[in-house]
Amino acid sequence: MAGSSYGTVFRVTTWGESHGGGLGAVIDGCPAGINLSEDDIQVFLDRRKPGQSEFTTARREGDRCRILSGVFEGKTEGTPISILVENTDQRSKDYSNIADKYRPGHADYTFDMKYGFRDYRGGGRSSGRETIGRVAAGAVASKLLSGLDIRISAFARSIGPYTVPRDKTDIRFSKENPLTLADKETYDKAYEYVRSLISEGNSAGGIIECIIEGLPAGIGEPVFDKIDAELAKAIMSIGAVKGFEIGDGFEAAAATGASNNDEFRMNDGRVEKMTNHAGGTLGGMADGSPLIFRAAVKPTPSISSSQKTVTKNGENTDIIIQGRHDPLIVPRAVVVVESMAAITVADLLLRNMTARYDKIKDFYI
Amino acid sequence: MAGSSYGTVFRVTTWGESHGGGLGAVIDGCPAGINLSEDDIQVFLDRRKPGQSEFTTARREGDRCRILSGVFEGKTEGTPISILVENTDQRSKDYSNIADKYRPGHADYTFDMKYGFRDYRGGGRSSGRETIGRVAAGAVASKLLSGLDIRISAFARSIGPYTVPRDKTDIRFSKENPLTLADKETYDKAYEYVRSLISEGNSAGGIIECIIEGLPAGIGEPVFDKIDAELAKAIMSIGAVKGFEIGDGFEAAAATGASNNDEFRMNDGRVEKMTNHAGGTLGGMADGSPLIFRAAVKPTPSISSSQKTVTKNGENTDIIIQGRHDPLIVPRAVVVVESMAAITVADLLLRNMTARYDKIKDFYI
Amino acid sequence: MAGSSYGTVFRVTTWGESHGGGLGAVIDGCPAGINLSEDDIQVFLDRRKPGQSEFTTARREGDRCRILSGVFEGKTEGTPISILVENTDQRSKDYSNIADKYRPGHADYTFDMKYGFRDYRGGGRSSGRETIGRVAAGAVASKLLSGLDIRISAFARSIGPYTVPRDKTDIRFSKENPLTLADKETYDKAYEYVRSLISEGNSAGGIIECIIEGLPAGIGEPVFDKIDAELAKAIMSIGAVKGFEIGDGFEAAAATGASNNDEFRMNDGRVEKMTNHAGGTLGGMADGSPLIFRAAVKPTPSISSSQKTVTKNGENTDIIIQGRHDPLIVPRAVVVVESMAAITVADLLLRNMTARYDKIKDFYI
Amino acid sequence: MAGSSYGTVFRVTTWGESHGGGLGAVIDGCPAGINLSEDDIQVFLDRRKPGQSEFTTARREGDRCRILSGVFEGKTEGTPISILVENTDQRSKDYSNIADKYRPGHADYTFDMKYGFRDYRGGGRSSGRETIGRVAAGAVASKLLSGLDIRISAFARSIGPYTVPRDKTDIRFSKENPLTLADKETYDKAYEYVRSLISEGNSAGGIIECIIEGLPAGIGEPVFDKIDAELAKAIMSIGAVKGFEIGDGFEAAAATGASNNDEFRMNDGRVEKMTNHAGGTLGGMADGSPLIFRAAVKPTPSISSSQKTVTKNGENTDIIIQGRHDPLIVPRAVVVVESMAAITVADLLLRNMTARYDKIKDFYI
Repeated sequence: MAGSSYGTVFRVTTWGESHGGGLGAVIDGCPAGINLSEDDIQVFLDRRKPGQSEFTTARREGDRCRILSGVFEGKTEGTPISILVENTDQRSKDYSNIADKYRPGHADYTFDMKYGFRDYRGGGRSSGRETIGRVAAGAVASKLLSGLDIRISAFARSIGPYTVPRDKTDIRFSKENPLTLADKETYDKAYEYVRSLISEGNSAGGIIECIIEGLPAGIGEPVFDKIDAELAKAIMSIGAVKGFEIGDGFEAAAATGASNNDEFRMNDGRVEKMTNHAGGTLGGMADGSPLIFRAAVKPTPSISSSQKTVTKNGENTDIIIQGRHDPLIVPRAVVVVESMAAITVADLLLRNMTARYDKIKDFYI
Repeated sequence: MAGSSYGTVFRVTTWGESHGGGLGAVIDGCPAGINLSEDDIQVFLDRRKPGQSEFTTARREGDRCRILSGVFEGKTEGTPISILVENTDQRSKDYSNIADKYRPGHADYTFDMKYGFRDYRGGGRSSGRETIGRVAAGAVASKLLSGLDIRISAFARSIGPYTVPRDKTDIRFSKENPLTLADKETYDKAYEYVRSLISEGNSAGGIIECIIEGLPAGIGEPVFDKIDAELAKAIMSIGAVKGFEIGDGFEAAAATGASNNDEFRMNDGRVEKMTNHAGGTLGGMADGSPLIFRAAVKPTPSISSSQKTVTKNGENTDIIIQGRHDPLIVPRAVVVVESMAAITVADLLLRNMTARYDKIKDFYI
Repeated sequence: MAGSSYGTVFRVTTWGESHGGGLGAVIDGCPAGINLSEDDIQVFLDRRKPGQSEFTTARREGDRCRILSGVFEGKTEGTPISILVENTDQRSKDYSNIADKYRPGHADYTFDMKYGFRDYRGGGRSSGRETIGRVAAGAVASKLLSGLDIRISAFARSIGPYTVPRDKTDIRFSKENPLTLADKETYDKAYEYVRSLISEGNSAGGIIECIIEGLPAGIGEPVFDKIDAELAKAIMSIGAVKGFEIGDGFEAAAATGASNNDEFRMNDGRVEKMTNHAGGTLGGMADGSPLIFRAAVKPTPSISSSQKTVTKNGENTDIIIQGRHDPLIVPRAVVVVESMAAITVADLLLRNMTARYDKIKDFYI
Repeated sequence: MAGSSYGTVFRVTTWGESHGGGLGAVIDGCPAGINLSEDDIQVFLDRRKPGQSEFTTARREGDRCRILSGVFEGKTEGTPISILVENTDQRSKDYSNIADKYRPGHADYTFDMKYGFRDYRGGGRSSGRETIGRVAAGAVASKLLSGLDIRISAFARSIGPYTVPRDKTDIRFSKENPLTLADKETYDKAYEYVRSLISEGNSAGGIIECIIEGLPAGIGEPVFDKIDAELAKAIMSIGAVKGFEIGDGFEAAAATGASNNDEFRMNDGRVEKMTNHAGGTLGGMADGSPLIFRAAVKPTPSISSSQKTVTKNGENTDIIIQGRHDPLIVPRAVVVVESMAAITVADLLLRNMTARYDKIKDFYI
């Protein structure tokens, strides 16, 4: 139970270090009969690829994927889908100076404490490249969901101190700017802010918001595996995420029951909520309205100024981190958030199929 | 995979509806040799019991626990520990009027959508009484942790709009007031606020903060089962929780790398962080500093004013919820948060024991 | 992962020692809407109850079950089903002399080695009473299966050296004799054999055969979770079972491909095998023909003659086991085998529902 | 839960079809600090490689492995170990005639029933090549075990009707003959037998025996995850295995308690059993004596004579299977049995580390 697998029916296992032979994912439990090609996956991987704007690292990572198993004549077979991305442009020498020093904000120290040593080449397993496997699997989950008319879309709600007001949210615009912000005015301010931080060798964080539409009511399991709990785990397991909230989230804590409850009304023969403070869940199950959550992303810990730290032998020292790093991880993390959401939802949809005996009878008899 | 189990090595399965024969938990994987009595568990259960102050429901729930298995001569045996709390004072008649109507903010609608029908007596499986099993198991996990010098303490950081300032946090005071707020001045304001809501038949929410001290560095699994991700799931799975954050959480999103990074320094031969913006984790593993997280709790959805809703047959109607309900769930939820944290940490501690081959050799040879 | 749970979707957790407060099972993942009463379970429990013939222990165990949760108005709710059997007639004093000595053929020694001490009252967790939870859960699984026209039937293929010839198998007769043997002539010989062993204070073993009819082709998962592999684990996990085989089993090892292959032919529009050497599986999946397996049950280790053993302090000694014991466990184990088979098959049926994307689309759209 | 993973702490996921891009395994939960090289794995893979004698298929499979992750500077890192074997000499054209016909004794029919279609190129996921991932992972597990002085050795107990008598068992000889039989005299007879079957285009089965030495008492979990139950599942999940028994196995069913019980005696300060009818387990836990089990392997279903079958469109037809096939799978399956045993034992050893609280305290304090 070393924690490199996620999901129960749609089960993803990722592997790989930043500077080993490659990275990848194995998906066990993907249903048979989904159209799937390497291009479907590559589209997702390209969205997380560095080097796409001034706000992401200049490292070039080819990150071409190969499907090694589980697909036959363009369709998933029901057997494990193994996806491989080989490591190519990984300059090990860049990282030689950090072998003995712990970088603040990174996992160097805790890896040494847990395992007795670590792969010091670029973060090893805790590198941002670890998300390659997540995104590859997320692309497969998204194919599964799109055939069921379920759509997932994430964008930046804020960058640093600049937040898109709710009533100005423009998701289309978020897909056209390098900060993935959902509002032009906020973008203009954030653009200057991030450029200024870059010039200082500093870095920024932000908040990613994700909307899932088309979820049938009832998806999610009561008690421990609530859809909000599963999403919280999935999203908080992404490297830099420090907070998760659904619907009104932390604001709900300051509201009252009268203002926070979402009343029901029939609309065109369907049950609907008149508001959506809950963010699309009741009792841990989707309620048929859009599911909305947010993730807080911390500023990239790799900054260029000198920082105090210690060596693995227990001596005080300073460290200057060199190499090519993202001043802002948010734009590349958007597709990672979508991917983890897609895996989570796909898994819960499959799990839900055994909830009712009458439907099981229909299935078999 | 219906989601009534939590944990992998220290594995808790809860069961029970608010108005069935009882509720309970089975803990499989608790190590042999821990001193455990029914009193140890009762102390925890009594903290979540209603009827203890003017801020909790006047319902009386005896909630006496029995240990049915797994303990022999006062010690855990290594076999499953089955804990039973029988339902006694559950007046089914109180709930007859909600059999056909969906209460806003409750899980009535989603239960019907998932299973085709529901146990309409008082919330059934989604009742707050579901947490009895969690708290019973949390008491056992806490016994395990206390022998390893790990301490968990939760309290209210805010009630409604009133928040305890960080520099005024007084955990001792939180254990002496019925709102569990960690500051007298904040308590005084919140007290009036909640009393005023009670008089209107309205309800309040709040934010619970939890501190875990004594965790060895390295606890938690990289990638999907990070300690922050596991805690997020555990806490978000508690009925009314809408948000989770660790360390600076959502505030970190607005910080810069230079301000957010925690630098290292040697202190008395030990590696220490000079600040704790991260809240005690790096790369998903405990870093040896206090682990600090917060949970946003929504206002109780059971309010006494009339609300719009629909019947299960799809007709618009109004609903007035009667019976005895908590105007504020936060004080009783504090021990639920501690319990879920204890289970999570106990599980990760056990999982961590197989991380290093040299220690495995020491164990067996 | 302490091993008291079995199944993945239909997931059973058992708990209880022979002399604690009781024994029971929690079933998580049972679909909603199955008619279920305590009587349905009691019928199964009564079949494993001792004291029913001269061949089983004279101990009286009331073994009345209560359903504590998961059933509402006579139907399963989709929530965990908790079943409790309280311990009543357990005379602890019978076992006082075995507290320090290891009984040959029992788990006393290994429990001490694993946990450092053990519940010495009658076997504790390794008592035959542990199967109460399995049988209670098996009764629920059988209800699920019967609605899908799947039938499971077990009987004794042999007792000691007396084996029912294949062509004389009469399952109806097996339900009418206390040895559950499927042939009158074999029964007469075995009857004398077992009575003779009883008079010597000795004990007998036997082979149980189980037939599962009505399984749709395709049930079971390729690779590790083949239906034969899952059944092997389920059956070998029953206390006294020392061997498992499916179809021709060990005889197949001496056959040739030409004699062992089952050829296919169409019959009335359906694909059928002309023989069934395979015992109903191909590649780990049910092939639509009857699934047939056998379990070897060792003789009861509790015999009345003096045996050599050691004390827990490492001294040689002798032991004479007193108390009331089964001279033959086979007749009471038949329902345990059926129960484990039912749980296994129910679980694999539910798991199979997510194999095909076209059927998932039918389910949701 | 599609069944391509095995183990709980030492968790192996295999993937790959016979004619896709390759096959492999990901091992999550392997402890950090084990010396491991590609050569360690290649030695195991070479033992299962075809083309090594007249008794195995003449197909040449290069089967060179690459370790893509989880190993740094010659040591396991504690992160997932991904092992890849690319498919090279796979002549797809050999299999074109079986696309529409179901081969008797193969999984063609059941794959179609489960998934709606199948990868008809050489068996796809149910090909014998599927065991490559198992053997690669078994090599890693064996490295883990060898450092703990646990040794696993398998050989052929019988080939077709020819069985090595217990008192003539010569394991050393089994490693020197192409049939892996543990006795020269039995080998000579079996040699003629198999050659004769080859000349007819027919095939043979056999029984593999496996001995595990050095297991500490207490390994294995009571109830469902007994060491014998886990081994049964692991071994029965190997393609052609139809039976599993431990110790005296099916013979024990015909014995009496007096003859079958293993008495205890002190020997040189250690508890020992005077006999080993049980095969090294008591109550599902290793008892310190050698663990001995046997697996029945059916004759290879690919034979060259014409067989009756049906097409996927439901028409009766005949099939003649062409291509290069093993007349006997036993010699190549020996290392597969050892591998599955090694994975199972490694996993149970790691799981056992959390059984006792006193040892957990020693570990952490």
